[in-house]
Amino acid sequence: MKTTAYGAQTAESALKPLEIERRDLRDNDVEMEVLYCGVCHSDLHQVRDDWGGSVYPVVPGHEIIGRVTATGEKAKKYKPGDLVAVGCMVDSCQHCDQCEEGDEQYCRERPTLTYNSPDRIDGRNTHGGYSKHLVAREDFVLRMPEGLDASRAAPILCAGITTYSPLRHWGVKKGSRVGVIGLGGLGHMAVKLAAGMGAEVTLITRSASKAKDAAELGAQHSLISTDPVAMEAAKNSFDLIIDTVPVEHDLKPYVPLLDINGALVMVGQIGPMGEMDSVPMVMGRRQIAGSVIGGIEETQELLDLCAEKNILPDCEIIRMDEINDAFARMERGDVHYRFVIDMSTLPGSRA
Amino acid sequence: MKTTAYGAQTAESALKPLEIERRDLRDNDVEMEVLYCGVCHSDLHQVRDDWGGSVYPVVPGHEIIGRVTATGEKAKKYKPGDLVAVGCMVDSCQHCDQCEEGDEQYCRERPTLTYNSPDRIDGRNTHGGYSKHLVAREDFVLRMPEGLDASRAAPILCAGITTYSPLRHWGVKKGSRVGVIGLGGLGHMAVKLAAGMGAEVTLITRSASKAKDAAELGAQHSLISTDPVAMEAAKNSFDLIIDTVPVEHDLKPYVPLLDINGALVMVGQIGPMGEMDSVPMVMGRRQIAGSVIGGIEETQELLDLCAEKNILPDCEIIRMDEINDAFARMERGDVHYRFVIDMSTLPGSRA
Repeated sequence: MKTTAYGAQTAESALKPLEIERRDLRDNDVEMEVLYCGVCHSDLHQVRDDWGGSVYPVVPGHEIIGRVTATGEKAKKYKPGDLVAVGCMVDSCQHCDQCEEGDEQYCRERPTLTYNSPDRIDGRNTHGGYSKHLVAREDFVLRMPEGLDASRAAPILCAGITTYSPLRHWGVKKGSRVGVIGLGGLGHMAVKLAAGMGAEVTLITRSASKAKDAAELGAQHSLISTDPVAMEAAKNSFDLIIDTVPVEHDLKPYVPLLDINGALVMVGQIGPMGEMDSVPMVMGRRQIAGSVIGGIEETQELLDLCAEKNILPDCEIIRMDEINDAFARMERGDVHYRFVIDMSTLPGSRA
Repeated sequence: MKTTAYGAQTAESALKPLEIERRDLRDNDVEMEVLYCGVCHSDLHQVRDDWGGSVYPVVPGHEIIGRVTATGEKAKKYKPGDLVAVGCMVDSCQHCDQCEEGDEQYCRERPTLTYNSPDRIDGRNTHGGYSKHLVAREDFVLRMPEGLDASRAAPILCAGITTYSPLRHWGVKKGSRVGVIGLGGLGHMAVKLAAGMGAEVTLITRSASKAKDAAELGAQHSLISTDPVAMEAAKNSFDLIIDTVPVEHDLKPYVPLLDINGALVMVGQIGPMGEMDSVPMVMGRRQIAGSVIGGIEETQELLDLCAEKNILPDCEIIRMDEINDAFARMERGDVHYRFVIDMSTLPGSRA
């Protein structure tokens, strides 16, 4: 079917309305009307081809809340009317060790991403959630739990799972001491989720002005990284630090904040990072690691946790035609903390 | 008692014979005659005050095999005549969480090192195994298992435990794919121990000439790090890499050799390291970590394992008066793979 969408025709162009083709339902597919779609910084990167390999038109969007409109013949998980969600992946090989362990994000044959990725069957470039309708394999469609506010849940699908997965993988539990570096889309979810998991949460930031915001999000403490006395006093005080800073930066001031056996996990910057100092790593078995999104089962677990604990992203709802302004504001860091597009503002048609 | 030793009086001086005082036996002390003492690169660093804080005279040596000559009133573990061993630590607080978990090397109040460290009770600078006699707290004295060749066991106490501890901590077992970077004192023990634990071991080296040596030590494969084709082919192929290189170097070529969830553990360089690239870390949850020596119980376990599996360091036995030449050769990398001093060549006296 044809459906309307918002996308970029070149790396230089603004996002504009366009018409795209959604595939006919395969046996195990789910078709949905997109209700809300979160705006992730990677949407902008891929629109601009910052990472190379973008195939135009790029229709971004991988934080998707929708309502099922039709299902394939063998798709039994959902029925029309169900509230569902789609995150960063829409398929994977399903037979490698990573997929079998529920870590589809590390699929040996690479997961099929929700947009700007070749479909595994027909090879066509995938298109994301800035679109009236979406078709995806049911195994990659998540169930929206009852009671989770659909208008605010979208960022759980990327910002949420990107921070939840390392919190879970590194065993955060009640009383764990978690530091979060940076307070953007990812950072604000890391604070909320770690707090929701019972951790003692500290926002680590250069801006004293963010301390109040962090407290409102659930952080018990703030640590101002430009204050050498506070940084010295905070040495050895974290079991886990989630580093959400999305640009190259120096980890040397942060690693000594970890306690013995602690881990600093990068989830923001994907590229060059500064030099290391092995002293605190060797002398306390500290580690630096990275992590990307999370598995499908883990994402469902997170949605259920958010419903149970009433954890919701702080969103600013925008109209579809405000997306280019939203990109510009996101670049300036002028968002608290995630834009979500109300997709009813995109006039759509089913052909 | 007074005993003879070899030590340095200043950072510039060669090692020479000298007389030192060993403390009177405390209740829980063990006195031993030193039979063999390994030569570690850190001996040279501390003699030269490369890390600062050396207190002269420095009497190095922390890979010590001895025979018990006397015991304190309440020391019940050993009796005169027993073969024993002492490694890098001779005391720790014994009440912090790390000590209680058997990780005395990460003692919150810092372990007392075997040499060049203030004793916890009398504050006097400790003196190491380049000495006719040694007195140490029995809890830090290890039992030499039957059948372990005393003349070759000494390097197990530092080079051995430094590589065994991360192999154990990161869960190496039969079939684990372990890479070892560098083939010096630490590297050769890493190869032998990983092979002894049933791992599939690969030496990663710049020198094709070392491949044969590595095979003799038990490595199944060698990977020449200057060969870009081989390095590309080896991507994603290690569960754990033990990096024994003792100088600053670039980890960017090595991290992509790790499989998903793999860890690269630095045990050689304690200081500045090169820049990171977060891409392989984020995209495969790979980690870079460090590790230092190991705990007392773990070291006993290692000695027992070495006896059981007949794993022994490759040693070149030297006379005490050859130590300055040995230091010079060690600096040139001219040792396969560890010097061990036959301490019977140090004329000694008990006063």
